[in-house]
Amino acid sequence: MAKITKKKEQPIILVTNDDSINAPGIKALVEAVKDLGRVVVVAPDKPQSGMGHAITIGNPLRLNKVHFIDGVEAYTSNGTPVDCVKLAVDKILHRKPDICFSGINHGANHSINVIYSGTMSAAMEAAIESIPSAGFSLLDFSLEADFTAAKTIVKKIAIQMLSKKLDKHLLLNVNIPAVPEKLIKGIKVCRQAYAKYKEDFVERKDPHGKLYYWLTGIFVNFDKRKDTDVWALKNNYVSIVPVEFDFTDYEVKKKLESWKF
Amino acid sequence: MAKITKKKEQPIILVTNDDSINAPGIKALVEAVKDLGRVVVVAPDKPQSGMGHAITIGNPLRLNKVHFIDGVEAYTSNGTPVDCVKLAVDKILHRKPDICFSGINHGANHSINVIYSGTMSAAMEAAIESIPSAGFSLLDFSLEADFTAAKTIVKKIAIQMLSKKLDKHLLLNVNIPAVPEKLIKGIKVCRQAYAKYKEDFVERKDPHGKLYYWLTGIFVNFDKRKDTDVWALKNNYVSIVPVEFDFTDYEVKKKLESWKF
Repeated sequence: MAKITKKKEQPIILVTNDDSINAPGIKALVEAVKDLGRVVVVAPDKPQSGMGHAITIGNPLRLNKVHFIDGVEAYTSNGTPVDCVKLAVDKILHRKPDICFSGINHGANHSINVIYSGTMSAAMEAAIESIPSAGFSLLDFSLEADFTAAKTIVKKIAIQMLSKKLDKHLLLNVNIPAVPEKLIKGIKVCRQAYAKYKEDFVERKDPHGKLYYWLTGIFVNFDKRKDTDVWALKNNYVSIVPVEFDFTDYEVKKKLESWKF
Repeated sequence: MAKITKKKEQPIILVTNDDSINAPGIKALVEAVKDLGRVVVVAPDKPQSGMGHAITIGNPLRLNKVHFIDGVEAYTSNGTPVDCVKLAVDKILHRKPDICFSGINHGANHSINVIYSGTMSAAMEAAIESIPSAGFSLLDFSLEADFTAAKTIVKKIAIQMLSKKLDKHLLLNVNIPAVPEKLIKGIKVCRQAYAKYKEDFVERKDPHGKLYYWLTGIFVNFDKRKDTDVWALKNNYVSIVPVEFDFTDYEVKKKLESWKF
């Protein structure tokens, strides 16, 4: 009896972001990977920057099939980036995708930004779900940002990730300097720099005389060593920081054991 | 000339939460610590559970002074728990408080919940700002939850934190089992269990025939060892997990360095 040989299934690449389906960055990401497998997009229907790892508990979620790029299945949701990943796995794919890519974010997600970033939180949610993932960010906020170099980087990393046996919880935070491709010196594996935003709320008065505040802040890098993402980006390298979601501080844990409660 | 001796200033304890200023849990927290220093409350004006580390970028923020408990300065904000901490430091206190306590949350924030939790994100924001912090959660969602045991625990930890020289980035995730005080076996320093929610969206149709979804999920603990927060809580211990905000996975970093891009 002839052995039935099953054609190898295409890998499924789940794509999401936090800048919404209408952002040029997600289009660039899909264009970079669409020849490498079956790409399915599930993205927020409106910008969700700074949403961190928010999920929607008190409101119902919607999913709408939309036209995005020919040949690419795409949906929008009214939820957060993390909701999009949860909905994609549970309600659209009905299986785990092979990898999940989030981005390409308009603006940096290096150093402390990983905590606030909807882009990285979506990728982290996928990693928790045992889907190897990466978040991509270009250091250019502009709607007219040039994603040419970023697309090359995304494709390179996708090829690596699809050809290797990966840890199921692998999560990469990839940041790309906003310079022409020929100026990029290479890809550097880094650690997260210790940096923060020094808040500087802009105080205004409404027409009724009541105060309100706009959150703004100045980025301050306290971490001057050369193995950080901030250093790499400043020196025109692409930075890759592997991220974990076990937040336990094992060193402090040892110290705390001597506390007397 | 006589030396001027300055009376030692009271410590400032900043208190926030994610269940809003109207939740019984934040009242219990303030009652537990109000004799230990000057307590200042800055809390959301509405529930913000599951907000994770969200910040408000696209909308103006408000601060309102409110009456809360006699002798305790209190404000509400329309922002997220993280916004509350930023506003408190920058617009109310004009200095770093000595410690920041968040909670007491109605419901668990052990294991993977640390990532979704507004309570823990507020505490993490304070730790990033170099304010030693702790988030407290009682394993009881109910509005009528009994916070008696939790208050004892909060006070014990506050006394420890105010009497020790602390790492400025110290961040504790404290969970308290929902049992009467006499059944609590002690306080255990733990690591974050690897657990996750298995999504189970409830699918419904609106009156116009269109589908919508409610996010629900079943908690699944994959981590059966006895040094985790989940184990401790199941066995009637209070769990304390020290949390870090350097998310770099240093082990994976070493492996990644051999990748060829």
